Amino acid sequence: MEETQENIQFQLTNELIENVKALIINNDDEALKRLLNEFHYADIAEILDELNFEDAIYIIKLLDSETTSDILTELDEDVREKILDNLSAKEIAEEVEELDTDDAADIIAELPEERQEAVISQIEDEEHKAEIQELLTYDEDTAGGLMAKELVKVYGTWTVAGCIRRIRGQAKDVSRVHSIYVVSKEEKLIGRLSLKDLITAKSDQRITDIAKENVDFVNVNDDAEDVAKVMAKYDLEAIPVVDDEQTLLGRITIDDIVDVLKEEAEKDYQLAAGITQDVDSDDSIIELTRARLPWLFLGLIGGVGAFIIMHYFEGSLPKEAFVLFLFTPLIAAMAGNVGVQSSAIIVQGLANDDVKGSINNRLIKEMLLATLNGIILSVFLFLFVFAWEQRFELALAISISLVAVIIIAGLIGTFIPLFLHKRGIDPAIATGPFITTSNDIFGIVIYLIISKLILGI
Amino acid sequence: MEETQENIQFQLTNELIENVKALIINNDDEALKRLLNEFHYADIAEILDELNFEDAIYIIKLLDSETTSDILTELDEDVREKILDNLSAKEIAEEVEELDTDDAADIIAELPEERQEAVISQIEDEEHKAEIQELLTYDEDTAGGLMAKELVKVYGTWTVAGCIRRIRGQAKDVSRVHSIYVVSKEEKLIGRLSLKDLITAKSDQRITDIAKENVDFVNVNDDAEDVAKVMAKYDLEAIPVVDDEQTLLGRITIDDIVDVLKEEAEKDYQLAAGITQDVDSDDSIIELTRARLPWLFLGLIGGVGAFIIMHYFEGSLPKEAFVLFLFTPLIAAMAGNVGVQSSAIIVQGLANDDVKGSINNRLIKEMLLATLNGIILSVFLFLFVFAWEQRFELALAISISLVAVIIIAGLIGTFIPLFLHKRGIDPAIATGPFITTSNDIFGIVIYLIISKLILGI
Repeated sequence: MEETQENIQFQLTNELIENVKALIINNDDEALKRLLNEFHYADIAEILDELNFEDAIYIIKLLDSETTSDILTELDEDVREKILDNLSAKEIAEEVEELDTDDAADIIAELPEERQEAVISQIEDEEHKAEIQELLTYDEDTAGGLMAKELVKVYGTWTVAGCIRRIRGQAKDVSRVHSIYVVSKEEKLIGRLSLKDLITAKSDQRITDIAKENVDFVNVNDDAEDVAKVMAKYDLEAIPVVDDEQTLLGRITIDDIVDVLKEEAEKDYQLAAGITQDVDSDDSIIELTRARLPWLFLGLIGGVGAFIIMHYFEGSLPKEAFVLFLFTPLIAAMAGNVGVQSSAIIVQGLANDDVKGSINNRLIKEMLLATLNGIILSVFLFLFVFAWEQRFELALAISISLVAVIIIAGLIGTFIPLFLHKRGIDPAIATGPFITTSNDIFGIVIYLIISKLILGI
Repeated sequence: MEETQENIQFQLTNELIENVKALIINNDDEALKRLLNEFHYADIAEILDELNFEDAIYIIKLLDSETTSDILTELDEDVREKILDNLSAKEIAEEVEELDTDDAADIIAELPEERQEAVISQIEDEEHKAEIQELLTYDEDTAGGLMAKELVKVYGTWTVAGCIRRIRGQAKDVSRVHSIYVVSKEEKLIGRLSLKDLITAKSDQRITDIAKENVDFVNVNDDAEDVAKVMAKYDLEAIPVVDDEQTLLGRITIDDIVDVLKEEAEKDYQLAAGITQDVDSDDSIIELTRARLPWLFLGLIGGVGAFIIMHYFEGSLPKEAFVLFLFTPLIAAMAGNVGVQSSAIIVQGLANDDVKGSINNRLIKEMLLATLNGIILSVFLFLFVFAWEQRFELALAISISLVAVIIIAGLIGTFIPLFLHKRGIDPAIATGPFITTSNDIFGIVIYLIISKLILGI
């Protein structure tokens, strides 16, 4: 299996990196080009991510701009930023000329404002320049921010033969054709057809006769995540983008959607783990601290809150009830775990548009679920405490509180993401430290109150 | 925005469901067909997921098998299972005949063994039958389990004109062509070309002259997740699958990969939240309990462990040190949070093949990071405890222990996923309750030991 996989699965080895570094030191440009040209641009980008900055620049200046422009799109954002800082506006413009409009606009959008204009003014192809300028006006989280201007467009009045003749020209600029979009004289989207339809049709047929009129599209202002959901649900590989007047503006392809889905999943995962920014394990300690410290600070505040509560109860509890405090880590852990579980299910359901029905029904279901789980767990806890302490009332108090804590924790875990979602806030923020911390505190308060009541102290 | 989006964004309303139910009660088949035929099959599947079982069957029997076969592939797994239970082998075979081989094999694979053969024997198209039987032999988590047999294949010796003539026939069975694969006389994959290449070539050229020889492929036994990574990284929309002798067996398309990526992300997210099985918010309370209870039980064991440790220390601590116990929820929460953060970053890095370099370097980096975070947080905790309790030594003991606990928690959170990964175990299991629970216990032990030492008690 490993053997046959070599062809496609690129392995970034230390040996390869050392090899590249040695060739740079020796200025052996020819051997370096020969070596790198064997790799896919995405692999070369991985190599560059590992090199120091001067070496990366050396390679970018060495290879031709057709390759380097693709490499630029695949680099880590911070590496790309540094490299672009060291290229002139003219050099960046040359890279950008090689790219599709969507990738070109993404790269320019990352530049500081004042450089953006300098680069754009250096783009020689006037059409490419105008298209990039248009794309820069859209918000990056919308369909407009995802789409490319490259597409194959035909007029409904054309014949199949005329169409094939003309799309030979258009298709040169479009790396993957997917669908051919049919527009009216006024450039409104009125249908689509596939290359296959075109090949299998008779050459004197009119486009309007063979085109499918039922064409899916999205509005240029639609949210990028919604576009991703739609394309994944309907298994679309490309979707046209129109404005409010149905004018065809561009198209979005599935590879961009794969990136949106991956980023979205990573963001949710990180939020659940209490990491706010988009960081990865290779980022600097300062960046990682900035992403992690706020949530840890929240946890610290929660812990201090728990201390104050316990301190308050300590004053009013007789000495023989002191053993209650030794169970607070258990209670806090259970409250946190239940809360995270129930919020994760709701968050995921909301992300998949899978949560139907009223909030009340959800809460009732979670209450039943938590009660069932709580009773099972409490039986075990009761048996342990009774066996250990030999005090029936104490064991009863602790295990009954556990049931109550689990129910409340489940309800909070269910309610908060639903509430945030209704308010238009990303519910993913509710899994993880936010729920854990609030449930820790609620859990300990409920536990101590109920135990006090049952023990009659 | 909402307006123009209606065309593509389907809204599952209660009104629609009630409407469908009413039409079923009135046996108004014509109106029902008219209503449903307006929707995409993925939307009809959503409607069926919401109906009771008899109504769902009613609709499946009403619509033609071309539509219902597609609906079946989109249904929730448990709904599909119930519906298939109520169709005869002959009826299922008719549905399966309409589907591409990969979807057909997936549906048959879900049936009980004895029914599988009954259904297969009823498939009339011998070629389709043989292909499905072949696909059923592959593990569902491999490239073989993802691929379809439908593809467009040409021999290198053909001319462009001959090729266009013959692929008209093949392309009929292939919903989206993507690439045309070029094979040798022995059916070995030797290249690929696009429909665009074919259209723009001269009609008397040989295929071998215009085909790209550098064709990416995967082995039939490759892991499905690896295939997904490769396709996402290289922006591939389809990839051919070969056996060890390079024989072309099938192809995988990007829409299947989107599903793999989504499932993988959901599984990791659920594991991080302490949910073991693939459940969603609409599953039954029993199913949800089965997915959630094991992790809660782990938390309970951890809490009992924390109690036993605290109980042990209680015996040896003087009364004035009792306040230490009131900080155990804080210590446990911080240990848990830090552990989850560091493990999440490692788990995500491993999933993206982003974790390079040695384990030692990772651990050193995490130690520096945790030390920085720990010191910042401990300063706050010191100030609070000193202000509250007015005892310098106590404040010092608690805050120094917090630094130590955070460092150890970070190291455990970093080490465990790396260790699991080396052992070939999915590291995603290490985020969430597993890390939280073990860090709770380690954290409390370290905290009490260090505090005791500093306070000299």
